[in-house]
Amino acid sequence: MRIESPGYTECLGSVRINDVQQVLELDSGRVKELPLREDVAVQKIEEEVIKDFEEKMAIVIPTKDEKLELFEGVISGVPHECLIIVVSNSQRKRVDRFRMEKDVLSQFCHFTHREALIIHQKDPIIARALAEAGYTDILGEDELIRDGKAEGMVVGTFIAMIAKKDFVGFIDADNYFPGAVWEYAKCYASGFSMAKSPYSMVRILWRYKPKISAGMFFNRWGRVSEITNRCMNSLISNKTGFETEIIKTGNAGEHAMSLRLAEILTYASGYAVEPQELISIFEGFGGILPMVHPTTAKHGIEIFQTQTMNPHLHEERGGQHLLVEMLLPSLGSIYHSSLCGDETKRLIIDELLQQNTIQSDEEPPKPRLIAPPRTINLKKFTEVMAKYMNSYSALEEEE
Amino acid sequence: MRIESPGYTECLGSVRINDVQQVLELDSGRVKELPLREDVAVQKIEEEVIKDFEEKMAIVIPTKDEKLELFEGVISGVPHECLIIVVSNSQRKRVDRFRMEKDVLSQFCHFTHREALIIHQKDPIIARALAEAGYTDILGEDELIRDGKAEGMVVGTFIAMIAKKDFVGFIDADNYFPGAVWEYAKCYASGFSMAKSPYSMVRILWRYKPKISAGMFFNRWGRVSEITNRCMNSLISNKTGFETEIIKTGNAGEHAMSLRLAEILTYASGYAVEPQELISIFEGFGGILPMVHPTTAKHGIEIFQTQTMNPHLHEERGGQHLLVEMLLPSLGSIYHSSLCGDETKRLIIDELLQQNTIQSDEEPPKPRLIAPPRTINLKKFTEVMAKYMNSYSALEEEE
Repeated sequence: MRIESPGYTECLGSVRINDVQQVLELDSGRVKELPLREDVAVQKIEEEVIKDFEEKMAIVIPTKDEKLELFEGVISGVPHECLIIVVSNSQRKRVDRFRMEKDVLSQFCHFTHREALIIHQKDPIIARALAEAGYTDILGEDELIRDGKAEGMVVGTFIAMIAKKDFVGFIDADNYFPGAVWEYAKCYASGFSMAKSPYSMVRILWRYKPKISAGMFFNRWGRVSEITNRCMNSLISNKTGFETEIIKTGNAGEHAMSLRLAEILTYASGYAVEPQELISIFEGFGGILPMVHPTTAKHGIEIFQTQTMNPHLHEERGGQHLLVEMLLPSLGSIYHSSLCGDETKRLIIDELLQQNTIQSDEEPPKPRLIAPPRTINLKKFTEVMAKYMNSYSALEEEE
Repeated sequence: MRIESPGYTECLGSVRINDVQQVLELDSGRVKELPLREDVAVQKIEEEVIKDFEEKMAIVIPTKDEKLELFEGVISGVPHECLIIVVSNSQRKRVDRFRMEKDVLSQFCHFTHREALIIHQKDPIIARALAEAGYTDILGEDELIRDGKAEGMVVGTFIAMIAKKDFVGFIDADNYFPGAVWEYAKCYASGFSMAKSPYSMVRILWRYKPKISAGMFFNRWGRVSEITNRCMNSLISNKTGFETEIIKTGNAGEHAMSLRLAEILTYASGYAVEPQELISIFEGFGGILPMVHPTTAKHGIEIFQTQTMNPHLHEERGGQHLLVEMLLPSLGSIYHSSLCGDETKRLIIDELLQQNTIQSDEEPPKPRLIAPPRTINLKKFTEVMAKYMNSYSALEEEE
């Protein structure tokens, strides 16, 4: 893979935010005996290097009643060396869609000689293991894990921790193009290979996001992302005193982290999860509030934003509906940050009023926060899970 | 890449037609020290093997006034080891779109350290070189190369011959997904790696062909392909006496051939080109008419049909219009073959009447045939072209 070098980097405390890097060539060929002198602005990441990182990476696919054809396409695009972890919240009653997903995954793993894990979000064993290990932030009143993609992501992160992976990447199950999934994983690995800190994050920017409605329309950025990024940048600007447009991936569903970073972040429920990750990083390591983890602060945190070659084509979930559902929690996570100044708060209120998503005397809702995975008693959790891990293997036959 | 083994093969004389093989895994990972025992139905094609074939392969991209964004995406999806040959028939007057394509290609090659060739279909030098070498079948009355994708493909094949490649693959420039382009090239290489004969062909079957019109509709096969395949299979059935459905890629625009095969085939102008390739193979080596090339007949010809993992998403060119424009010449190539029996002719007439593409007393038009590239005086052609080849390099600066 050939990719632009980070051309510009902004620092906020010990956080280094790299500007967008465009993928230039999906497949950059063999290692040359005499490495070519690359342009200073371009990096070739050799396939062997990418594979080294893929081996240490889990790809978490949160899914819920997704079309099986799409689910099958997504898993078959994940590079072979990555461990696939499916966290499904699909229905089990009447039609057992979870069983169907497991069958698809099992067949795929059988034919391709690979291992994968699949776990249901309402699995009582993992809920109990979490409770016993003192981590209850994602449990509901029924003592099972709550619904929601963010909760599924946290479950996937815990599984990746038990599987002793170093990196965890998230990919949505509603993607029409296996080839795009493949590229996301390559971008994650490439980003980590460029990182100098063990605390790093790669966020994907889609080249285009085609919108299907009466013909085809390649919308450069979704409306929601545009507004989220503007407010996030306002928050940074107000702290540094310098106008910035550095954040271009505030809502990136496709993103990956080193587990060392993933473990120490505070998450948020629902659509606030992706912007909240950035907010947690800025709060913890932005140099404005006290640094929460001195070691991490010393290493610094690196954020990469990678623009893919492939466009993103996914299931459409409707317009105004989506706007309210995504925008409100996204901006809520920024609004309620202790870093958020009055100017940014006003901007957020203005944006929400303009989109008719709040009344004039309302504020966006406070995000429901989820404690960092590291607060768990990992030894205890691993102990309880150990005897059940085999049952989550896609190749394991249920009796 | 993991791909199904050819599960079923039909023979017609010395032609072996393999049934569709599904791609199972885009990226099948590292070479294992101890190769796993693959299922009998599955083959893993190692990346190094694929790259060996890519190095010997030219990817010809015929284009005409295509959106530059799409053109750029397509070239950037072609694996690094392949030689890109663009044959453009884009406008040069008013807006010099050809120049813009060359600039895009040149920039891409500069950043990715690769070589590519780009030639205009109306280039007077190649037209003169063809004439001097006694190959006039694609020249018009103005002594330039005629318009048309088939003519562009033949030009590309000639350039691949001069560049001393062993394989030539065709990819249309109107593809929205660089990742799909990447997969086509991998499928070509995988197919050639499985071939036992030096005369081989790989034809791509799209997993789905999404049709964009008031929402998204994944049409399993295009209507045109469906009819072409039915008529092609009827032609075969009537010769062998056995009902068959083996041909599923009669109209495959995405296809590749060993140059040894490409050189000896008779082509047809316009949309007849892809079905005519099969017809030429059946006529020449199907064992019904006299074998035209005894050596080739001895080796046999192998046809692979590969179903991709990625769907195909391309520029929509309109409905009824396309049907007439594509169906008529496609079926014409079958109808006018000396292999075509009365039953198949009746079927073709019925299909065309049903689609309102002919009147009741009409026949489909005879395809305009193009002699095999091997009929050229290659020595002469190469001599004339030699001093100009540099000027077709994407990295060459025009003065």
